[in-house]
Amino acid sequence: MKVSLSLDKSYSKDVAIMVDVLRASTTITVAMENFGTIIPVKTIEEAENFAKKNNAVLAGERRGAAIKGFDTGNSPLEISNFAGNVLVITTSNGTRIMDGMQSKTLIGSFVNAKSVAQTALNLAENHIEVVMAGVEGNFAIEDFLGAGEIISYLTDQKLDEKALAAYMASRDVDMVQNAIKTSRSARRLGELGLTNDVEFCLKRNIYDTVPVYENGRINLIK
Amino acid sequence: MKVSLSLDKSYSKDVAIMVDVLRASTTITVAMENFGTIIPVKTIEEAENFAKKNNAVLAGERRGAAIKGFDTGNSPLEISNFAGNVLVITTSNGTRIMDGMQSKTLIGSFVNAKSVAQTALNLAENHIEVVMAGVEGNFAIEDFLGAGEIISYLTDQKLDEKALAAYMASRDVDMVQNAIKTSRSARRLGELGLTNDVEFCLKRNIYDTVPVYENGRINLIK
Repeated sequence: MKVSLSLDKSYSKDVAIMVDVLRASTTITVAMENFGTIIPVKTIEEAENFAKKNNAVLAGERRGAAIKGFDTGNSPLEISNFAGNVLVITTSNGTRIMDGMQSKTLIGSFVNAKSVAQTALNLAENHIEVVMAGVEGNFAIEDFLGAGEIISYLTDQKLDEKALAAYMASRDVDMVQNAIKTSRSARRLGELGLTNDVEFCLKRNIYDTVPVYENGRINLIK
Repeated sequence: MKVSLSLDKSYSKDVAIMVDVLRASTTITVAMENFGTIIPVKTIEEAENFAKKNNAVLAGERRGAAIKGFDTGNSPLEISNFAGNVLVITTSNGTRIMDGMQSKTLIGSFVNAKSVAQTALNLAENHIEVVMAGVEGNFAIEDFLGAGEIISYLTDQKLDEKALAAYMASRDVDMVQNAIKTSRSARRLGELGLTNDVEFCLKRNIYDTVPVYENGRINLIK
């Protein structure tokens, strides 16, 4: 099995793992506990229209901050207070990237790293592509290190050189925690009073559930 | 001091460190022991013309292999058998990249990692940019890890997130050696019978000299 790592864009037509550690991947994984389906949409307007029609809970952020009139932010801690059939979510990076994916797309982060790796191995024919969401198309260290943690469960496979580099960078847990807590994304969340979210997103393997995005909807892998 | 990491292209107008571990950076550092000046050129024809006019030794490679009619390959082990006033060198990636640089450009790799980092600190005003040569514009793990080793002497500075990631990936020496020995570049060199070159390029801090590229020529920092 080939395992490759890419940023912002996906090339695989087999299985991809979308990694947006701070915070879309983590929030979606938590939300799947209390919602039947999650609908990721690109714009605030789409989110509002969809939520009205479908009596859905509305979550999202722009530049990390909650959106006026929405039920909740893109926060794994806040989202656990909500439940329902449908959650609509719009985020700066993660939901935009899912939209362009041609493969079966799993949602991965530290909180479900082991499960998402094992599920990808079960589903893929010959290629698992780990896709870092990044920030506005740019490298974000939290996604590189989250990707490395997921890849740590795939080291028996054929890693490409970027995937191997991410794995190597993610070996020292203390250094990983420190690098992510001082990342641009975490500093931004800190300014918004959301440091607890960052702490939560760094917990490892507290979920064995794997959200999958297909045909515009996110559900749990059956 | 800001320390950033980039691939293939340079953005700094201050000080850059060009990292082409396998093998241009290493070969150039070794060659500076026996040559007064090194002239990097882009094409084989340019190299031949320049060597004829200037009675220079002619070194280079394409896709790792020595070039017909040249005195020697882009090999740190072979180059140590040559000496003279001027060496002309053309390589697939490293020399092409130097050509586009607007900054004072130092040549760095494992063999002079500590010295090149310290020299960059002395010379730069506010920005050291570490530039991975890569392979034809693509990520190459040997340059990422060589960059990380150089950056390990700059951790008191403000590392950007890519520079920090390279530093983190380069911490385990055994993993670094293994990753580079099994890299695409090393496998290609192995097919050409140049495995000894790879071993040599992995030696750390055996030189305290720092080649600098300015105005089309490489000399040692005075």
